[in-house]
Amino acid sequence: MSGASLPDATRGVSRRGLLGLAGAGLAGLGLGVAGDRATIAATGGTGTASASSYPFYAGHQAGIVTPAQDRLHFASFDLTPGTSRAELIELLRDWTLAAAAMTAGRDIGEFGAVDGPYGAPPEDTGEAQGLDPAGLTITFGFGPTLFETADGTDRFGLAAQRPAELVHLPHFPGDMLKEGQSGGDLCIQACANDPQVAVHAVRNLSRIAFGRAAIRWSQLGFGRTSSTSTSQATPRNLFGFKDGTANIKAEEPAAVNDQVWVQPGDGPAWLAGGSYLVTRRIRMTIETWDRTILREQEAIIGRSKGEGAPLSGGSEFTEPDFTKTGEDAAPLIDRAAHVRLAHPTRNGGHRLLRRGYNFVDGNDELGRLDAGLFFISFQRSPEQFSAVQLSLARNDALNEYTRHVGSALFAVPPGAREGAYIGQALFT
Amino acid sequence: MSGASLPDATRGVSRRGLLGLAGAGLAGLGLGVAGDRATIAATGGTGTASASSYPFYAGHQAGIVTPAQDRLHFASFDLTPGTSRAELIELLRDWTLAAAAMTAGRDIGEFGAVDGPYGAPPEDTGEAQGLDPAGLTITFGFGPTLFETADGTDRFGLAAQRPAELVHLPHFPGDMLKEGQSGGDLCIQACANDPQVAVHAVRNLSRIAFGRAAIRWSQLGFGRTSSTSTSQATPRNLFGFKDGTANIKAEEPAAVNDQVWVQPGDGPAWLAGGSYLVTRRIRMTIETWDRTILREQEAIIGRSKGEGAPLSGGSEFTEPDFTKTGEDAAPLIDRAAHVRLAHPTRNGGHRLLRRGYNFVDGNDELGRLDAGLFFISFQRSPEQFSAVQLSLARNDALNEYTRHVGSALFAVPPGAREGAYIGQALFT
Repeated sequence: MSGASLPDATRGVSRRGLLGLAGAGLAGLGLGVAGDRATIAATGGTGTASASSYPFYAGHQAGIVTPAQDRLHFASFDLTPGTSRAELIELLRDWTLAAAAMTAGRDIGEFGAVDGPYGAPPEDTGEAQGLDPAGLTITFGFGPTLFETADGTDRFGLAAQRPAELVHLPHFPGDMLKEGQSGGDLCIQACANDPQVAVHAVRNLSRIAFGRAAIRWSQLGFGRTSSTSTSQATPRNLFGFKDGTANIKAEEPAAVNDQVWVQPGDGPAWLAGGSYLVTRRIRMTIETWDRTILREQEAIIGRSKGEGAPLSGGSEFTEPDFTKTGEDAAPLIDRAAHVRLAHPTRNGGHRLLRRGYNFVDGNDELGRLDAGLFFISFQRSPEQFSAVQLSLARNDALNEYTRHVGSALFAVPPGAREGAYIGQALFT
Repeated sequence: MSGASLPDATRGVSRRGLLGLAGAGLAGLGLGVAGDRATIAATGGTGTASASSYPFYAGHQAGIVTPAQDRLHFASFDLTPGTSRAELIELLRDWTLAAAAMTAGRDIGEFGAVDGPYGAPPEDTGEAQGLDPAGLTITFGFGPTLFETADGTDRFGLAAQRPAELVHLPHFPGDMLKEGQSGGDLCIQACANDPQVAVHAVRNLSRIAFGRAAIRWSQLGFGRTSSTSTSQATPRNLFGFKDGTANIKAEEPAAVNDQVWVQPGDGPAWLAGGSYLVTRRIRMTIETWDRTILREQEAIIGRSKGEGAPLSGGSEFTEPDFTKTGEDAAPLIDRAAHVRLAHPTRNGGHRLLRRGYNFVDGNDELGRLDAGLFFISFQRSPEQFSAVQLSLARNDALNEYTRHVGSALFAVPPGAREGAYIGQALFT
C-alpha cells in the first residue's frame, strides 16, 4: 500500500456496524495506514508458502492461488431480513476496510484508546494482539440467494446481474445435505498459518456485520489437504493418503486462467477476474475406513498410501496410466478408483483448484470422531465441479466411506483496488 | 530410548485392540525401536517451547510442566461394559507403547508392509506420515468412575486404591454442566504444535481402545491460553486479554513440587509423582463481552487489556496491589475483579498450573460462535481447584460472560519407566 493518503472509500464509510455495538457513538473504524509488513506480490496473493502477509488489494482476491495456509475458519452469512441494498453496500465497504487492515497484521480499529464520558467497547476484540499476520487471507463470496427474489421482490436489485451459472448445485447421488450446513447469502474464507488469526478475522467481521448479516454456518479446519503451489509438500487427508497431488498450482498460469478465473465474456462483467467457490462438508467414516485392508484402501484411491504414486507405477507426480493392466488383465488402477474418476480425461478436461481442510468437530454419541474433509474448490464455472462430482457420486468406490452433509456455491468477485470495496462492480 | 533390546513390557503385549479391527490376525504393534529424534530432558518433559520431541518415559508424565504446546486434542473415554480388569491393563499397555512411539515421531506400527493372503488394515492411520513429532505429549488420567462400584460390583478391583480426594467435583454456583461434556473413566490429553499430530494421536489411541473403551466426549483447542515456562510469551484468551500471567512455571521447582505433584504420603502410593487434572468447558458469550466498554472489561479482569498490567500499576509481571485505592477511595482493583478473586492470597495460598486452550466449535442457531476456553489445570489436590473455583463462582464479575458447561476430574499417575505401562503401580 502506498502510505500517506487515505483511500477514497474510507471517506464517509459506514460505522453502523460498530455503532450498533456501542452504547455511545464514539467508535470508528481505525483508518490510520500503519506501516506494512512484508508484502509479496502485486496480484492475487501468489507467493511462497512461508510468506507472512499478502496484500488485500489486488487484481484477484487472495486466498485462491495463494499457497494454501495451514488453518481455516470459514463462515457463511445470511443477510438479516429488512437489510437494504444500501446497507449491504455499507457492509461490504466495512468488511473491505477491516479485511485490508487484518491481512496487513493490523487491528480493525482502536484497541484501547477509546474513552470518554460514556466509554466505548474496543473496536477490535483483541485476541490477535501481538500475533504475526500469519499469512492471513480473507476471501469474500456471494451466494445464489443474494440474487434471488423473496416473495416476488428483488431484495437488493441484483437479479439482472445474476450470472446464469450461479444457481443452486444439483442434487448428487448420495447427498445427505443438512440445511444448516449448506448455502448462504455471503461467505468469508479466512485462511492463516495461525488459527487464532483466522478465528479473530471471522469473529471481527461477524461483529461488524451485526444487525445486517449473521453467521448461518461456520467451519474450522485444522490442516490443509491441498497444495496450491509447487513450493509446498503434498499434505495428507484423514484417510491417511496424500491429497491434491494433481491439483492446479499457482505456477501453471495458463491452467489458472483457463480453469480458475472467470474470463471477460463468460458472464456479467462484474465477475470477470473472479471465480466460483464450492464447499462440501464431507464426513468421513474413518472408523470403517481404518478397518479396510491396505490393498483395498489403495485400490479405492488408485495410489499407494506411502508414496502417493499411481498404482500404474512411478512416483507421486507420475501421470497415472489408466490403460495399464496387471497379470490378470485387469487395469492396475481400478475402474472405480477415485483417481480415475476424478481425472480431467474423464471429465471433459475439467480441473478444479482444490483448497480443502481436515476437520474434527468432536464426536458422535457412539464415540466416533465427527471428522472429515471440508472440501473447497475454486473454478471458472460451477459446471466443472458438477461434472467431476457427478462422476464421483455415481461410481467412486470411496463413497462407501464418505457422506456429503454440507454444500454451498458462491460467486467470488475479483479483487478490489485500493479505494474501492469488494464486489463494487456488482452495484454500479 | 536405549536402542537394541526390547523393553519387558513389549513381550506378550496384547494385540487385541488391533486384531479386533483386522479381518485376519496379521497385525501387531510395531515394536521396532526406530531412531529417536531430538529428546530434551530426563523427566517430565521440561524443555524449551520450540522442542520438537519430549520423551514419553519419565518420572512425571509429560504434558504438565512441558512448555504448553499450541494445539490440543483432549478425549475422555468410558470403559465398554463387560471390559475386565485384565483387559483394562492390556489397554494401558497398548496405549503406553503407542504413546511412546508417537511422541517420538514414529507410527504406531506397520504403515503399509502388512500383506498376505487376506491382508490387514494398516496399523497406523497414516495422516501424520512425514510430519515432525511437533512436540507431541500424551498425558493419561483416571476418572473417579474407574474406582466406583457399579451395581455393587467393584468393576476393576480398584476401590481400595481410590484416593480419598478423587471424588466428583462439587456443584459450583452457576454450573450448567452437560452430562455428555463431563466426566469419564479415562482421559487422554494430546498436545502438539501441529494439530494434525494431536488429532492423529487421539484417533489412533481411540482405535486401539476399540471394544474396550470408547470416546465419551472430546475437545479440540486451537490456541493455548497459558504459558507454563518463562521461555513463552503470555498468550491471549477470547476475551482478548493475556491469560496465565501468574501461572505456575516449570522454572519454579519449589512451587511445582508444592502445588502440582502429588507427594508421597498424600494418599495411595501409586499416585505419588502424579497430579490431579481438572477440565472445565467454559463457553464465553463473546458477543455480549464485545459490547462491553473497555474500562468495564478491564475492571472485570483487574488488568489492562493491552499490556496485561494489574490496574494497581506497573507492568505485566508486577504483583497486583489489592489495597491500593484511587481518588474515590475505591480499590484500583475492583472487589469482584477476576485477578483478585483468583489470587493465591484469597485462596489459602492455593495455586494451579493452568494449561487451557481457546476453542471455537462452530456456531449456534442465532449465528453466535460456540467459543470459549477449554480450561485445564493440574494441581496436587482437587481441593486447590475447588477453593479457587468456589471463590470465583460466587463473586467473579466475569461470570456474566461465561458459562461452565463441561467438567471433569482425573487422577494423573506418574510417568512410566521404560518397560512399564502407565499407571502400573495401581494394579500391582
